[in-house]
Amino acid sequence: MTLILGIDPGSRITGYGVVRDTGRGCEYIASGCIRTGEGALPERLQKVYRGVCEVIQTYKPTTMGIEQVFMARNADSALKLGQARGAAIVAGVEQGLEVAEYTATQVKQALVGSGRADKEQVQLMVMHMLKLVQKPQIDASDALAIAICHAHHRQSLIPHGLSGAKQRAGRLRL
Amino acid sequence: MTLILGIDPGSRITGYGVVRDTGRGCEYIASGCIRTGEGALPERLQKVYRGVCEVIQTYKPTTMGIEQVFMARNADSALKLGQARGAAIVAGVEQGLEVAEYTATQVKQALVGSGRADKEQVQLMVMHMLKLVQKPQIDASDALAIAICHAHHRQSLIPHGLSGAKQRAGRLRL
Repeated sequence: MTLILGIDPGSRITGYGVVRDTGRGCEYIASGCIRTGEGALPERLQKVYRGVCEVIQTYKPTTMGIEQVFMARNADSALKLGQARGAAIVAGVEQGLEVAEYTATQVKQALVGSGRADKEQVQLMVMHMLKLVQKPQIDASDALAIAICHAHHRQSLIPHGLSGAKQRAGRLRL
Repeated sequence: MTLILGIDPGSRITGYGVVRDTGRGCEYIASGCIRTGEGALPERLQKVYRGVCEVIQTYKPTTMGIEQVFMARNADSALKLGQARGAAIVAGVEQGLEVAEYTATQVKQALVGSGRADKEQVQLMVMHMLKLVQKPQIDASDALAIAICHAHHRQSLIPHGLSGAKQRAGRLRL
């Protein structure tokens, strides 16, 4: 019964989703968006950091998955996204969580079974798997998808008796 | 007599420099590099965050300047740099420091008087202004240059009686 946090970082909106991994599937706990507003960059990054810390302190997940950016549109948007991503990851590790990264393809494969699924398919599968009656906001839905993906990857590792050190080796490095 | 921290963020090495602004110039206090090593990304970003926090707790600067990236080589390096920059900025604001951003051109102009000065000229000027007998490591030297630039910009604002709110307007936004 592990509580898992999924984070979809963005320079304006960072989505979060918390699920409970029961071993037979995932249950919805919470989801939402951290909006950084129009302030100066340091204040906006602090909002991401504090927002993620607050979610962790409220729901007490023990592990966190975050989307890895496979290709940003350009250097400017990559820098902005990287800054928000850095703030969110630091929040996770400073709160004592293990942090794993997943590419968009890995998330799609875990949910829909194909790395080529579109956003709409992923969102519908999130609703189906978590028995949601309302469609979550897209950033929150993406974060829930990452949390479910992280649950799948953890489960597929644990039965093989891999040590913590080997599980950690599955983390993507930049 | 304000203590000023300068940060030159990088995905592998983050330089820091601390100077004392006496009102008639800057005095050298400390400088060095935070090396992030070869670990996984979350641990490396935590090293940047904790390293900057430690420098702040040790020397107790009240304000921080950080280099703004004008143009990264490509989206991949921009993302990596953005993550380190995000971790360093969050450390500054979480420790209660005001954080200002300066472009490389602003730093060169503040030190050498020309935005087209090369790195060598900037480094020699840092040594001259801070009366250093040894050449600092390049990342530390760049961080000291940012700290001196921040001192100049703060001084040029204060005599005109600008309010805190107006000084903050000088911050560059992304």
